[in-house]
Amino acid sequence: MNQSQTQVDSSPSQEIQFESDVTVSLVKSSASDADVIWAARVSTAGERSQESINQDAKAASGLINFLMRERHGTPFEHSVMTFYVKAPIFVWREHMRHRTASYNEESGRYRVLEPVFYVPAEDRKLVQVGKPGAYVFEAGTNEQYQIARKEYEEACTQSYHAYQRMLDAGIAREVARGVLPVTIYSSAYVTMNSRGLMNFLSLRLKSEGAKFPSYPQREIEMVAEKYESIFAELMPITYRSFVDNGRVSP
Amino acid sequence: MNQSQTQVDSSPSQEIQFESDVTVSLVKSSASDADVIWAARVSTAGERSQESINQDAKAASGLINFLMRERHGTPFEHSVMTFYVKAPIFVWREHMRHRTASYNEESGRYRVLEPVFYVPAEDRKLVQVGKPGAYVFEAGTNEQYQIARKEYEEACTQSYHAYQRMLDAGIAREVARGVLPVTIYSSAYVTMNSRGLMNFLSLRLKSEGAKFPSYPQREIEMVAEKYESIFAELMPITYRSFVDNGRVSP
Amino acid sequence: MNQSQTQVDSSPSQEIQFESDVTVSLVKSSASDADVIWAARVSTAGERSQESINQDAKAASGLINFLMRERHGTPFEHSVMTFYVKAPIFVWREHMRHRTASYNEESGRYRVLEPVFYVPAEDRKLVQVGKPGAYVFEAGTNEQYQIARKEYEEACTQSYHAYQRMLDAGIAREVARGVLPVTIYSSAYVTMNSRGLMNFLSLRLKSEGAKFPSYPQREIEMVAEKYESIFAELMPITYRSFVDNGRVSP
Amino acid sequence: MNQSQTQVDSSPSQEIQFESDVTVSLVKSSASDADVIWAARVSTAGERSQESINQDAKAASGLINFLMRERHGTPFEHSVMTFYVKAPIFVWREHMRHRTASYNEESGRYRVLEPVFYVPAEDRKLVQVGKPGAYVFEAGTNEQYQIARKEYEEACTQSYHAYQRMLDAGIAREVARGVLPVTIYSSAYVTMNSRGLMNFLSLRLKSEGAKFPSYPQREIEMVAEKYESIFAELMPITYRSFVDNGRVSP
Repeated sequence: MNQSQTQVDSSPSQEIQFESDVTVSLVKSSASDADVIWAARVSTAGERSQESINQDAKAASGLINFLMRERHGTPFEHSVMTFYVKAPIFVWREHMRHRTASYNEESGRYRVLEPVFYVPAEDRKLVQVGKPGAYVFEAGTNEQYQIARKEYEEACTQSYHAYQRMLDAGIAREVARGVLPVTIYSSAYVTMNSRGLMNFLSLRLKSEGAKFPSYPQREIEMVAEKYESIFAELMPITYRSFVDNGRVSP
Repeated sequence: MNQSQTQVDSSPSQEIQFESDVTVSLVKSSASDADVIWAARVSTAGERSQESINQDAKAASGLINFLMRERHGTPFEHSVMTFYVKAPIFVWREHMRHRTASYNEESGRYRVLEPVFYVPAEDRKLVQVGKPGAYVFEAGTNEQYQIARKEYEEACTQSYHAYQRMLDAGIAREVARGVLPVTIYSSAYVTMNSRGLMNFLSLRLKSEGAKFPSYPQREIEMVAEKYESIFAELMPITYRSFVDNGRVSP
Repeated sequence: MNQSQTQVDSSPSQEIQFESDVTVSLVKSSASDADVIWAARVSTAGERSQESINQDAKAASGLINFLMRERHGTPFEHSVMTFYVKAPIFVWREHMRHRTASYNEESGRYRVLEPVFYVPAEDRKLVQVGKPGAYVFEAGTNEQYQIARKEYEEACTQSYHAYQRMLDAGIAREVARGVLPVTIYSSAYVTMNSRGLMNFLSLRLKSEGAKFPSYPQREIEMVAEKYESIFAELMPITYRSFVDNGRVSP
Repeated sequence: MNQSQTQVDSSPSQEIQFESDVTVSLVKSSASDADVIWAARVSTAGERSQESINQDAKAASGLINFLMRERHGTPFEHSVMTFYVKAPIFVWREHMRHRTASYNEESGRYRVLEPVFYVPAEDRKLVQVGKPGAYVFEAGTNEQYQIARKEYEEACTQSYHAYQRMLDAGIAREVARGVLPVTIYSSAYVTMNSRGLMNFLSLRLKSEGAKFPSYPQREIEMVAEKYESIFAELMPITYRSFVDNGRVSP
């Protein structure tokens, strides 16, 4: 009898899938521009800052801009967002270097991982030009794209079949998963406050207007872009001020 | 002309006040037992853990209890609470050693501090008996209470008057405040997740049922008690499990 | 012309290698039992705690034991160790969830990764028995070991060749690496203080004497064991006390 | 019998003292420019970065400058310093908002605090001119200095005597200390890595050359200046690069 099989709590769909996007959705939030106001005002108004709690933040965009420009970061820590994110493991490897966030991720020890793999889309720039520290990415040829696509598909399929054969032989998930490639998708919940999120955006999103240039890998930038659009909606004044001040995390 | 006076953004009420309590109120929260469920389930269910997002947590109290007992702490990090707290400075000194929280406090550099001072209440145990590392507190005599009360009132009043005289002489707030005693109240916003909060409770609240004994100063314990009752209401299953497992922070 | 090739700063040895161990070496340290003494004594002796700075820690093992038992963790934060660690990526994925450490790791974006892969040794327990939350690992049969070995070797070799073909086609390293399996080795420097290290040991090393049971994956436990033996040598009294108090991180 | 007296582990000198400086001394360090080199090189050289461990850092000042300019902060986290610092409580209140450091401080609960108080020196600028967010400090008149000096001396002396009378009456130290002013000195050990230290310097030290202006209170700036001169000696290339790049913490 196959011991491992009996413990599988979610049997993977057998069809191997390839996708070229990442998923980011907002699970919940307690985040608004108004939070920044009372958090900042307590320094000058003490107890009476509580009057700002249900106040309209619009009148206070000057204060938010001042905090951002002068890098008073702490008032941005009380606004908190939780995201569900599905991204390849090589993205998670970079993401989890951000230590002020909270994470819970699916586990290759506790479940059979599903055969869903990231593969670069046709418009993903494939060629790196330049010297260390000053790279530029350029579009690959169609031939290069076809090579990448083919190599990804073959390698992921072979690896996943090896994974399945080990599982079928009763080998533990945590051992069998060793052969799975870093392009396999994994799901996690990420909770960050808006200060941590702006730090993430400043490092993981390339922008002309940034005071300090960043060179993120495209795939984590795709996550950052989705974070950014949710953030812009939840905290429009803070976001605008972040952009206007050169995307320097306060 | 008195330069400092013109910058005073909140003229203090001149009446010197003494109080014997601390204030804790919930400003906002994004915290529920249900958060713990999807955060934990992602490890075994991956993407499908999202089905738990709006689920009733009651059926899952066994899971929460398992996480607490086995000290899987991260699923408790997605539940976040913001408190307004007013407490003496000597309490803040201890509170701010908790480094996983976010703080914004009123500033003695940016405002004139108000003459509101903490003084021990009659039931505050005043006498410390025992050797280092194994102290017990016992009730003081009425005479001791009267002495404490009188010394607090006189010292605080004298200090505050010295503060005012320096301000009146045009000396900067940040210099004048040096004479203010650590029993003066200060207000701050504190944002913590439920894991950080349980750590706080495990260290700052004395309880018979605790697996690891704690010897908090009474005044920070008063803050902890108020945190605890808010936490118990927001996350009743988590709180019950925390208590049942000996108040060990997961 | 192959643009990527010209930027390769370290051409990988072409021979694909399989290893079954992890590497941990001490790069440097500023860590001794004596550190704990002055750090703890400042609370009761203030300025005069400096007299303990070059003192023998042996006489103070009672103090260290007291701190450990009562969970006074902060005096253990001033002792710091830096390790060079070489381990499979699936180990790093778990390791980097420890957020109080400092990391620098080799980069699949900046260099061509070398074809060195972890493969389970013959004595690695391969079969997982039990239900979620209460697993036990048992030795596999020789046949299971042969299957694992063969699948690892084939999958890693195929993946690495796919990686090389993409590099040869001028595709950027950060894209090509997507097909590499999580069992590939990666090198990093890790700096931790002794409090963080004890937390790591309490979670990543299984021990009969532990008050709170842990179920680490064997491969990160191998790293933990090597950390532990270095730690035991640098801070023998602290280590002894940690073990004697049930391996509860203070 | 006076119960509190018997527990006093260090009887305070009764002479009330006033000082106008802060103390910072290096207790120990594991910090050098060379650390930054191997930590950075692991990203491009992997295992072979170990060859840099005992290398001369001088040849690599270009690399350090690159890291600083591009804000690659993590390679600066492996260099660690421990300081003994004696400063007024109002300085500690600001200092301990830096959450990536490790602290152990003397305790007003466990010892009788000594009557040593900070008082502004004659050259301390006493008058604040300007509006919130854009203050300038100017020298006070001699009369203002005399007022400050006198008020400090009287208030501190009165408060300390109140403290002593409560102790003499058998009231616990943790209660009696409530009347002590925030200008009383306290001692602590602080461990920081060079990244955290540069963050501290960027916020707590005013400099013409800083890209982002800071307005620290003079007394914490005095601590920062002493940190800075020790840091400059331990890691001269890193320090020079920090200054040359506008004192932006990487």
